[in-house]
Amino acid sequence: MTAKRIARLIALAAAAMVSVSSMAQDAKHAPQAEVNYQAGGSPLANEVMYQSTNPKAPAMTQAEFDLGRKIYFERCAGCHGVLRKGATGKPLTPDITVGKGTDYLKVFIAYGSAAGMPNWLTSGEMSEKEVDLMARYIQQDPPTPPEFGMADMKNTWKILVAPKDRPKKKENSYNISNIFSTTLRDTGEVALIDGDSKQIINVIKTGYAVHISRLSASGRYLFVIGRDAKINMIDLWMTKPDNVAEIRVGLEARSVDTSKYKGYEDKYAVAGSYWPPQYVIMNGDTLEPLRVVGTRGMTVDTQEYHPEPRVAAIVASHYKPEFLVNVKETGKTLMVDYSNINELKTTEIGSARFLHDGGWDSSKRYFMVAANNSNKVAAIDAKDGKLAGLVDVGKIPHPGRGANFNHPKYGPVWATGHLGDDTISLIGTDPVKHKQYAFKEVAKLKGQGGGALFIKSHPKSNHLYSDTPLNPDSKLSQSVAVYDIKNLDKGFTVLPIAEWAGLTDDGAKRVVQPEFNKAGDEVWFAVWSAKDKQSALVVVDDKTLKLKAVIKDPRLITPTGHFNVHNTQHDVY
Amino acid sequence: MTAKRIARLIALAAAAMVSVSSMAQDAKHAPQAEVNYQAGGSPLANEVMYQSTNPKAPAMTQAEFDLGRKIYFERCAGCHGVLRKGATGKPLTPDITVGKGTDYLKVFIAYGSAAGMPNWLTSGEMSEKEVDLMARYIQQDPPTPPEFGMADMKNTWKILVAPKDRPKKKENSYNISNIFSTTLRDTGEVALIDGDSKQIINVIKTGYAVHISRLSASGRYLFVIGRDAKINMIDLWMTKPDNVAEIRVGLEARSVDTSKYKGYEDKYAVAGSYWPPQYVIMNGDTLEPLRVVGTRGMTVDTQEYHPEPRVAAIVASHYKPEFLVNVKETGKTLMVDYSNINELKTTEIGSARFLHDGGWDSSKRYFMVAANNSNKVAAIDAKDGKLAGLVDVGKIPHPGRGANFNHPKYGPVWATGHLGDDTISLIGTDPVKHKQYAFKEVAKLKGQGGGALFIKSHPKSNHLYSDTPLNPDSKLSQSVAVYDIKNLDKGFTVLPIAEWAGLTDDGAKRVVQPEFNKAGDEVWFAVWSAKDKQSALVVVDDKTLKLKAVIKDPRLITPTGHFNVHNTQHDVY
Repeated sequence: MTAKRIARLIALAAAAMVSVSSMAQDAKHAPQAEVNYQAGGSPLANEVMYQSTNPKAPAMTQAEFDLGRKIYFERCAGCHGVLRKGATGKPLTPDITVGKGTDYLKVFIAYGSAAGMPNWLTSGEMSEKEVDLMARYIQQDPPTPPEFGMADMKNTWKILVAPKDRPKKKENSYNISNIFSTTLRDTGEVALIDGDSKQIINVIKTGYAVHISRLSASGRYLFVIGRDAKINMIDLWMTKPDNVAEIRVGLEARSVDTSKYKGYEDKYAVAGSYWPPQYVIMNGDTLEPLRVVGTRGMTVDTQEYHPEPRVAAIVASHYKPEFLVNVKETGKTLMVDYSNINELKTTEIGSARFLHDGGWDSSKRYFMVAANNSNKVAAIDAKDGKLAGLVDVGKIPHPGRGANFNHPKYGPVWATGHLGDDTISLIGTDPVKHKQYAFKEVAKLKGQGGGALFIKSHPKSNHLYSDTPLNPDSKLSQSVAVYDIKNLDKGFTVLPIAEWAGLTDDGAKRVVQPEFNKAGDEVWFAVWSAKDKQSALVVVDDKTLKLKAVIKDPRLITPTGHFNVHNTQHDVY
Repeated sequence: MTAKRIARLIALAAAAMVSVSSMAQDAKHAPQAEVNYQAGGSPLANEVMYQSTNPKAPAMTQAEFDLGRKIYFERCAGCHGVLRKGATGKPLTPDITVGKGTDYLKVFIAYGSAAGMPNWLTSGEMSEKEVDLMARYIQQDPPTPPEFGMADMKNTWKILVAPKDRPKKKENSYNISNIFSTTLRDTGEVALIDGDSKQIINVIKTGYAVHISRLSASGRYLFVIGRDAKINMIDLWMTKPDNVAEIRVGLEARSVDTSKYKGYEDKYAVAGSYWPPQYVIMNGDTLEPLRVVGTRGMTVDTQEYHPEPRVAAIVASHYKPEFLVNVKETGKTLMVDYSNINELKTTEIGSARFLHDGGWDSSKRYFMVAANNSNKVAAIDAKDGKLAGLVDVGKIPHPGRGANFNHPKYGPVWATGHLGDDTISLIGTDPVKHKQYAFKEVAKLKGQGGGALFIKSHPKSNHLYSDTPLNPDSKLSQSVAVYDIKNLDKGFTVLPIAEWAGLTDDGAKRVVQPEFNKAGDEVWFAVWSAKDKQSALVVVDDKTLKLKAVIKDPRLITPTGHFNVHNTQHDVY
């Protein structure tokens, strides 16, 4: 690819969504001086105006439009889609938004809704001017983002340390299977933290708002993917673990995983993009992109064409050399056989629209995946390559990878919390010894409230933890509920995690993502404050449910998700 | 689907390409009075003007634009693509065409090119005014055609005679395995002709310019597909064979086939569309659409996204319950396992871009398919599901289904003629006994000239026939070349088929598509004249190469392709 082509692409990306270089920069900290705001939709007369094809769209300057595009990508696209055609959030195309009008839209953006729309103004994450700007922005035509194919990927691909120059054996004394990889959302970094000493090993530059961390089958390589579709590959054998390769696989992404089937350990990585709607199979030790596969196609129910079927969670099968790739808007799980990537074999298993996140049941045969806006969980049988069940659950399930435990009555169950209600659904996952409960919602636990993101247990634990970071009530968003698995009818205990963190600043202090250590006797939580406020990690003793440690460090800015190496490597959750 | 939705769809289809109701109407016979032509690009001032987004595009009235769209669909889209992004023909997007200018474009359209562009003016198929109109039309933005999903298909789907109301056994005395199905291109019909008596059995309403006829595995049902993506299903057991079901599967299409694997006889039909780029699996006795699958995705070579990868030839495997679906612009053959259409398994075999037409080798294990603008033939191994070979051939191979015969030296070969040069390529197809020749171009025969469409032989024949209907020299387009398979170095004999037809009218009289009867002792040709001129079918005795019969009938208007039931049913060619 020529330098000219690169420049054109970056310009296109910038024009379409957000400039690459500014992605790690929070919208609130964008250079305000560049924009002459004027509330109420009439920008200053001497500005260059944005030309909408719809004459009824409220006027905005080009500078306002550009900032709106950037904020939209960072705050809105995840739920409403890059093309604004709707997903977890409602469609926001001009045929709908222009009719609603600026004032109506402003109220929604500012105060949110019970259905899950965040309260951007009252949470302090947008100013009144930004709310006004966004209400006008979403009445303009959505800019079409560019494609991002093999040449674009190759151009962003860098081997920082070639395989031959890497350690031949582990060159540090860390217990690497108990390292935690913690997303530092707004700085575009991950912190590697020694789970034994609780010390930060390294803070590593990555993409923006790393969505997940995943391990190679051997546990040596850590893969992280940012919302900006940048993947970093970190070698945990180095004296100081650090990046050895990186690539961008699109313009927006959420998922990465690695080949785990016997004979293919550490051989391939795979990443799915929100935009363009596609996935890519890469070389497992260099990130060299090998096969790009588009996911545009037909919805599972009406069989109509969808232009933006985003790739959400991907997991690697333990039964076959296959990746299970969830295509969100079409509601299909693709079982992609990586044993021959030149003559790629794919089995398409339809379930329900809006497949988002999920994880394995305790046997690792069934992939339990939430069809979030369909209020269902699909169980994909990785052994027989078919849909084992489709289960009605609560409103907008959001399991993360979910939680597995043995229920006294129902046997092995897999659990999910919900964004849209206060319940936790338990689904039976043992069709052999507990056939009557298999792939049915066998019980509903009452939780603290809606806005749950992650639920977690561990084979060595008797507890089930559920966060509620997106609940508008700060009492709920700053604490977690814990259930005694053997006494579920006793309800939950509340752990005031944010309070335990002892942060003196005001602010959101959302408590996010319970994550066990390798031994299964500690649970880690992120206390996620704003970028300019102090955050912390809080470690709880799983036996006593008492505070065990608080990790504070000026480098721990906006910690959100975190992943224990051993538990992630072996799908223990 | 509501009536309102139907009306909207038809309006959309009309706005995008051509009105459904006028599809069978030849552009030349469109109501001229509606258009106020004025050569040179300045239409009359009182007309409603078409609004192009490109101010440099020459002006045209809305009426001119609408006619241009219709002519483009009928004459140009097949090679240049519905979106004008190019395929066999060059791209014709405004960024290219506006720079060329109206005068330059008119010369090309009028006189054609050696590279394969037809001479629309000098062939008499377009008037000077139409050439001027089209030169201006292709400088406007290409209209985006609408999608056509399951609901749209269901809405056009009609069971004319339900399975329970059809004959329980054959109710006529025809030797149905020797019936010929002949496309009557411009009237939107097929003629069923009794191969024994040479009498017309029925003339049946179908889609526009039926591209191919295919048989169900049992030979009872005949499926035809028009360029307008209308499929008709004809029951050959009826006293007078006629339509029993119909459906439209898109806006433009070329291919239909049926399940042929043991246990799946007559169970499914499959059709591929040019627009939208997709295929659909249907119930084999009702045409009920069951599964729609989009083909938009990545090109085989650069792995870039292509928005319009059209579905060209489809064949049914004899080795597995699979359809082999050629996706043209991405250069991929999809092996679609129809044994479980709910959990659809597909193997994607990449070869070269512009996969178009092809057929089985004599063993029916290898699907030989022309990548026409790549000047290659791919051999797809239907047994092992992989690419067996990719063979360089002449310029723009166009085999139809190709011709198989035993070469004295090279053993079993498969042959193709070319649109772009005067050669016939022979490719070895026996990797067991003639391994050194397998999937290589083993010989090139010299033919009459370029513009070849179909080549044919038969296991019982010692002859190889090659037509040249698209050659600009009428001597060539009105005759065929015949080779003695046992004496290929002796060159060819010319049969003056059009002359033998004894047509008194002037006109194109193109000789198209040699097709054997069931016994393999007769070869049929269409002598294709303009819609208002007499056409004919000419039957040649294969042993003596003498004229055996001429079939003339006022109903035989614009005959082009024709298909013998037995040979099509059993892939004998």
